[in-house]
Amino acid sequence: MAKQPELDDYRVPYFDDGKKKSKFSLDDFDPSAKPFSTGSKDADRARLSEIGAKLDTLQECLHAQQKRRVLLVLQGMDTSGKDGTIRAVFHEVDPLGLHIVPFKAPTPVEMAHDFLWRVHAQAPAAGELTIFNRSHYEDLLVPTVLGNLDAEAFEQRCRHIRQFEEMLAYNGTTIIKCMLHISKDEQRARLQARIDDPSKHWKFDVSDLEARKQWDKYQAVYCDALAATSMDCAPWYVIPADSKTHRNVMVAELLLRTFEGLKLEYPPPKESLKGVRVE
Amino acid sequence: MAKQPELDDYRVPYFDDGKKKSKFSLDDFDPSAKPFSTGSKDADRARLSEIGAKLDTLQECLHAQQKRRVLLVLQGMDTSGKDGTIRAVFHEVDPLGLHIVPFKAPTPVEMAHDFLWRVHAQAPAAGELTIFNRSHYEDLLVPTVLGNLDAEAFEQRCRHIRQFEEMLAYNGTTIIKCMLHISKDEQRARLQARIDDPSKHWKFDVSDLEARKQWDKYQAVYCDALAATSMDCAPWYVIPADSKTHRNVMVAELLLRTFEGLKLEYPPPKESLKGVRVE
Repeated sequence: MAKQPELDDYRVPYFDDGKKKSKFSLDDFDPSAKPFSTGSKDADRARLSEIGAKLDTLQECLHAQQKRRVLLVLQGMDTSGKDGTIRAVFHEVDPLGLHIVPFKAPTPVEMAHDFLWRVHAQAPAAGELTIFNRSHYEDLLVPTVLGNLDAEAFEQRCRHIRQFEEMLAYNGTTIIKCMLHISKDEQRARLQARIDDPSKHWKFDVSDLEARKQWDKYQAVYCDALAATSMDCAPWYVIPADSKTHRNVMVAELLLRTFEGLKLEYPPPKESLKGVRVE
Repeated sequence: MAKQPELDDYRVPYFDDGKKKSKFSLDDFDPSAKPFSTGSKDADRARLSEIGAKLDTLQECLHAQQKRRVLLVLQGMDTSGKDGTIRAVFHEVDPLGLHIVPFKAPTPVEMAHDFLWRVHAQAPAAGELTIFNRSHYEDLLVPTVLGNLDAEAFEQRCRHIRQFEEMLAYNGTTIIKCMLHISKDEQRARLQARIDDPSKHWKFDVSDLEARKQWDKYQAVYCDALAATSMDCAPWYVIPADSKTHRNVMVAELLLRTFEGLKLEYPPPKESLKGVRVE
């Protein structure tokens, strides 16, 4: 019998300062794999709905406690499904408890600061679940592919990211990072579908085609970036994402495990309220 | 046959600088009324779900267009159901498109600025639907009840709020403001229920009981504040809210009418994409 897949089989090995280079490669992960799918779309949707309801309760508990913070970082190539994942996985979670932060190309004011400045400002507060839709990792990817960040500067940014995330974690933030991994063929199909449907043109930016031309470079930088920033306190997971249903279920399973690992409990009753009658 | 209720029957008369005092009173609105309920809870829930799906589509269109902004302000006494309204009305709306901002007691840094400073920073961007869970109106209510804002300062704050909201509206923000109107008896029942259920104690703050002692003062200030700040560009609505189902349906109906009034359209197809093949 084949070994049951484990979420941690998809975790990027932790960065080890001693050996510097990890042998992690995205090529070792099949984007079309569906290890956490039941094989039936209906059953997958039912599981997603079940996890959604649990996450809703766990999030309320996080909010009630006002202690821990949770940060989910979503990265992936264009069309990899960051928006779709947020919609599908968090559909059942009370919108009150969600804080979704999309990071676009930095504005001039943002550019006038260090690259972590705008990110730090959006870090979750106590009791919050924050989702970064793209993140400070774009500041490793884009400038490197465009040739504006040399190897030394790249390493320094990775170091600053590790230190930043470790500081967040030390101060009560649970961090989980997902790279939505699609194949180049799947991206072609998704981009073509957007072009062929005029009502979807608003989702399409011509720069997406430019970025696609740099596919291999992006994949290589992703490998380096993930390998250099996966840590026990802020692990990266590779999510096979050619199948949208699988992608959603796997991210949901990861979140559920993360929340359950927090051992959240509602605050104890307040003795002072015992027997109080409201006038 | 009785006249069908209209949403605008619940709109606070617009402030008129000429006559100064409006004859608006919250006492004229029965908190236990259910004018927009079908009379059946199941039918109300079905209607809520139907509106939710429509709001989801309309919100996507707002996002696609990246022009208009929508701001919903929710106010009401403790337990009036601000959180519950957000959960129920926006349950079907893509969390990506929602920005929910809870305003708590101001921090020292916030207090060191004018009262609109922290509010302006959270105003919706183009394509965004933002919900204020409490708002700058707390800065009229609380200090007045506590005796820290005299009549002249109150009037000046109202004027500044009118000018601020008019500026937002002029620059593309559609503003809608809802006062969730519950009776003092209903609040007693809801507070008592929280006290009697120890698992709900975390939702309870003893200051809620202090505020309740000032019920009549709060109602009076609400009347003055609403009358002085209801405008064509930022109207206030009184939502009878003793019935949670009615409250949810009425707020949903108002939002739907507001969104439909925007005549949102998806951006036109891009000619430049015609016939493009993705390599």
